Parts: sequence; structure tokens; C-alpha cells
Amino acid sequence: MTITFFGTSAGKPTKQRNLSAIALRYEQKNEWYLIDCGEATQHQIMKSDYRLGKLTKIFITHLHGDHCYGLPGLLSSRIMENISTPLEIYGPKGIKEYLENIKKLTKIKLLDYTEIIEICDKSDSTSCHEDNGTKFNFDTFDVEVISLDHGITTFAYCFFEHISNGSIDVKGLESIGIMSGKIYGDLKKGKTVLLNDGTKIEPKEFLLEPIRGRRVIIAGDNCKPDILGDRLNNLDLLVHEATFTQEVFENLEEKVKHTTAKQLAIAAQNGGVKNLIATHISPRYIKNPAKLQNDINLLDKEIEKYFKGNYFIANDFDAFLLDRKSFELKKL
Amino acid sequence: MTITFFGTSAGKPTKQRNLSAIALRYEQKNEWYLIDCGEATQHQIMKSDYRLGKLTKIFITHLHGDHCYGLPGLLSSRIMENISTPLEIYGPKGIKEYLENIKKLTKIKLLDYTEIIEICDKSDSTSCHEDNGTKFNFDTFDVEVISLDHGITTFAYCFFEHISNGSIDVKGLESIGIMSGKIYGDLKKGKTVLLNDGTKIEPKEFLLEPIRGRRVIIAGDNCKPDILGDRLNNLDLLVHEATFTQEVFENLEEKVKHTTAKQLAIAAQNGGVKNLIATHISPRYIKNPAKLQNDINLLDKEIEKYFKGNYFIANDFDAFLLDRKSFELKKL
Repeated sequence: MTITFFGTSAGKPTKQRNLSAIALRYEQKNEWYLIDCGEATQHQIMKSDYRLGKLTKIFITHLHGDHCYGLPGLLSSRIMENISTPLEIYGPKGIKEYLENIKKLTKIKLLDYTEIIEICDKSDSTSCHEDNGTKFNFDTFDVEVISLDHGITTFAYCFFEHISNGSIDVKGLESIGIMSGKIYGDLKKGKTVLLNDGTKIEPKEFLLEPIRGRRVIIAGDNCKPDILGDRLNNLDLLVHEATFTQEVFENLEEKVKHTTAKQLAIAAQNGGVKNLIATHISPRYIKNPAKLQNDINLLDKEIEKYFKGNYFIANDFDAFLLDRKSFELKKL
Repeated sequence: MTITFFGTSAGKPTKQRNLSAIALRYEQKNEWYLIDCGEATQHQIMKSDYRLGKLTKIFITHLHGDHCYGLPGLLSSRIMENISTPLEIYGPKGIKEYLENIKKLTKIKLLDYTEIIEICDKSDSTSCHEDNGTKFNFDTFDVEVISLDHGITTFAYCFFEHISNGSIDVKGLESIGIMSGKIYGDLKKGKTVLLNDGTKIEPKEFLLEPIRGRRVIIAGDNCKPDILGDRLNNLDLLVHEATFTQEVFENLEEKVKHTTAKQLAIAAQNGGVKNLIATHISPRYIKNPAKLQNDINLLDKEIEKYFKGNYFIANDFDAFLLDRKSFELKKL
């Protein structure tokens, strides 16, 4: 699967970083999903090889503007491009009112072919009046929704891919002279095949091992990465905010509910995460800043110090491949 | 005064053109104004030499998304940059509900230091419950609001600069040996000055001629440019949409309330406009298109054929100077 960052800035855009938006694509599916949609996400998509017509699900982590102000424009462009692919939008309670108000006032067909699914925040029994659960089952993966700690209802979305049936051992079958697509298909379905010469071929002899699904968590803003608990254990990929370095955070005049690079690295290390991508970087961090404490490299060093797995700090348009078999993460 | 285009596309952004947003700055004032604010206007501002802290008035022509979806993000960035310059937002009824709903749902201080002034559409007596007129008087200019024809309440904003008092004839005064700032100031105020040698200096002898104010109309989407009536007569500058060429417009399956380049050119010519800038260009028009009818040059040729004054087709980041004395428009 591929994870592409359309925006990696916290709060407001900079010349280098746009606001939160992440594309997720499973190689076996001819569609893609968007997690968060800050202002100008449609502009970033336009610069990439992703197309709005193949976007079928949007997951919004929370309703702060830097994560959702790009939704109305993206939906509006869908309508103007006559896209009629069904689109599902998942998000916290309030997202429906947000989009329906805008639709009403701007008097355009903003929500055609679109379904909005509001999610309960279980920590707040009054926050949801719809009977949506916190787990969604799709054909090849499930999405579990975890409430985070950010002062406003905020979610992490856990993309847990289903185990895939073992594929056919084509090389093995070819080595005994069997090249027929029909036989391959029957074996894949679990049928015993009787050859013309009377030989019986049992499926279990020529099916490779099933492959476990990839487990990926993409979290919204959050000041307690530990809240993800056991789900971090052997997690193939955690994408999580690291808005500040520890030093800058400790000197902030007003405390904010964000995670530091150090806190994220420690939580990922203790939890047992295999691959980590830090994003949602405060606009203060740049290359060669006037104040040394705002050097983007300090975030990197802080993670390196406390996390021993494979990690990256995301930049806009960075794309990562999480391999289906090796479960290794590499930057494309 | 300078008019800078942050966006010139109709409906949706393209790789070359962002959505409607125009900056207006009078050289004698240390502030600037924004007319319309499509998505990612704050991104365009960031790429220019305009600063949010000097933006004091926003005029929204209408509530279609391509003219206003950039407002929440721009306001949000103002708050994050701790800008406390008062900001006035003028727009049709509904703009207050639009912004207040977003403020409520995203739970941030979106509207601090901001006043929203909703404007009556006089053609619809039910559309406004506030007693705002359709003319606003500021210190050096007035803004008259004209209702256009676009299917949704849409305005043109007419920026009519006040006549400026004649400035002091410094060269003339210097030629008779008078260099005193105090004397210049008294003459400017209309006082007669008595010199030490008994000479009387009358203000009218050393005040240059007053300069008439520049008259500029920036119109929102509109299918009837004639609706601007006598205001077009000797108008220094009309900025108006020309979404389509005549040929493309006539072949549209669904008729839309927009102006063609031909219609705009004829209205500007008949009305007596001196300088014309066409903007809000349909995304179909590009350089070297696959279909010849979508050639951006056709818009230019259509205007050239019917309008004999000075004209431009705006591109993103084009800036134009309307000279204070010669009233000539030139591209910077």
C-alpha cells in the first residue's frame, strides 16, 4: 500500500508545507482514500497522479480547520467534473452540519453522490445521536476508530487489512507441467483437481501461505500517543503528529494538546511500533532558521534518540510503500 | 492604485489559475483590500508581497464557493499570527451565518477583531434584515454596491475615490525662497501666510489643481454587464468576468448566468469604459488546447474585436497600476 502526504503543516500553511491530508491506496484496489482535507488539498491532488474520480472514502480526524477546510472545495470540484462515484465521508459529529450549512448557503449541489457517516465519540455520551459504531468493515480491510486526546473530538483511524488467501504456487505447478488457468482457479477456490492421467492435485499442496494483513494507524492531533495502547504492539506503521520538539513545547506560553517528537518516539518505542512517520509539523520548523531551536533537523534528532525502528519525518508529496509481504516501509 | 489578481479561474482551480481573489491597494494608504476569497487565497497571498496584517477590508461578491471558500482559512491564519488589526467583511446576506457556523463547529476564535457587514440586495426585499445601505463611505473613497444578475445575490463593488485637495506647489514656493514646512502646512490648510518682510502669500497662488478620484468597478459573476448602466461612462477601470467565448457559450448544454468575452467587450465599448480587465476564465481555456475552441487566445481576440479601449485578460499574480494623475492603466 502507498501512503502519500499532501500536507504536513500544523495550523497554517507555509511555503513548503500545506495542511493535513494523506492519501492511502492499497495496490489491490482501484480506488484511494483520503485522511483529512485541509484547505487546498484539491490543489495538491491536482499536482499528483491521484484523481478525484477514484476517491471513494474520506476520513476526517477532527473539525479543526487545518484538517477539514478543504472539504467544500474538493466536493464542489467533484460536482463540476461530473463525478458520480459514490463517496463516503467519515468524521466526528458536526461534520454533517458543517457541510450541509455550506451547501445551503452557497446553493450548489455539494453533496450529490456523497454519504456522510458521523462517528460517536464514546468518551462523550451526548456527542452522537446516530447509531454508528466505531468499527467499519470493508471488503479487504476494517477501520477501527479510536478517540484521542486533543480538547475537541478527534480520532485515529486504524486500517487493519484482512488476511489474504494464499496465492497459487504457479512455479510449483509449472514444474509439473500444469499451465491451465482453469486448474489454477479451481485450486484457488479449494477444489481438488483430477488430471486426465488420473493424478489428483490437492489445493493445499499448491497454495502458498496466507498473508496476514498490514496494520496501519493514521492518527489525528493528539497529546497522548500512549492512548493507542496495545494497538501499537508490532504495528506495521504509525502515522502520528509531532508538532513540536520537547524544548520548544516546554517553553510555549500557552499549553496546547499536541505531541512532541520525544513523546512520540518514546510511545512508539515502548509500544512496539515497527515503522513510524511523524507529520503535522509546526510552521516554525524550517531549514537554517534564524533561531537554532527552530531547526527542522532537531525533530529528526529527537526521534532518532528515542525510537529504534524505521522512521521518517513527512514532507509534502512524500510517498511511502508498505510492502505487502515483507511489511517493510520505504520512501518512494 | 494597484490591482493584483490572486486568482482568475471560474468554478474550480487549475494548475495555472486559482479561484477568484483580487487585491486592491491605494498608494496613499498603508493597508489593502481583498475582493473575493476563493479556496487557497491565503496560499496565494503568502507567495506575494501582501501581508495579512495590513488587510483591513474584504468584499465578497457572492456566496458561490469559488468566491468565498478561502475565507475560513484566511481568518484562521490571522488568529494564529496574532493579528489584531480590525477587519471588516462585506458580503451578501448569509455570509455571517456561513462564518459563524464554521466558527461554532471548529471551535476556534475565527472572528476575533472581525466585523461582518451584510448587504441588502435591494431587488429582494426579504433578503436582508439589517439596516445596511448600499453605499459605504470611507475616508478617501466610497464603495457603492450594485446588484448583478447571476441567479444568486451577487454584487459589483464600485470603488469611487474622493477628489483629492491640490497638493502644495513646492517648486513654486522654493523658487521664491520659501522652504518652511510650517508655511507649506498652513497653505495646505487654506491659511494666508504673512512673511517676516510683510509679503502676503495666498494659498490659491501655490496650491496645485485638485485631482479627481479614480473610479473602479470590480464585479462579481454576472450575465448582464449592461446592468452597471451609466456607471460605465468614462469609467477608469472595469474588472469583470468573461467566463466563455461566444461560440462555446452558445453550445453549452446547460445555460449558465455568465458573460462572454464578446458581451463584455460590447458592453464596455458602448458604456464608455476606458480600461477593462477580463477575469474568471473557464478552466477549459488554455494555451495550445486539444480542441481549438478552447484556445485562451480566442478570448483575447473576441475582446479586441469589439472593445477599442485598453484591455487585459488577467492571469494569476498579474498586477496593474491605475495612475493617480494620468488615469492610465498599465501592467506592472
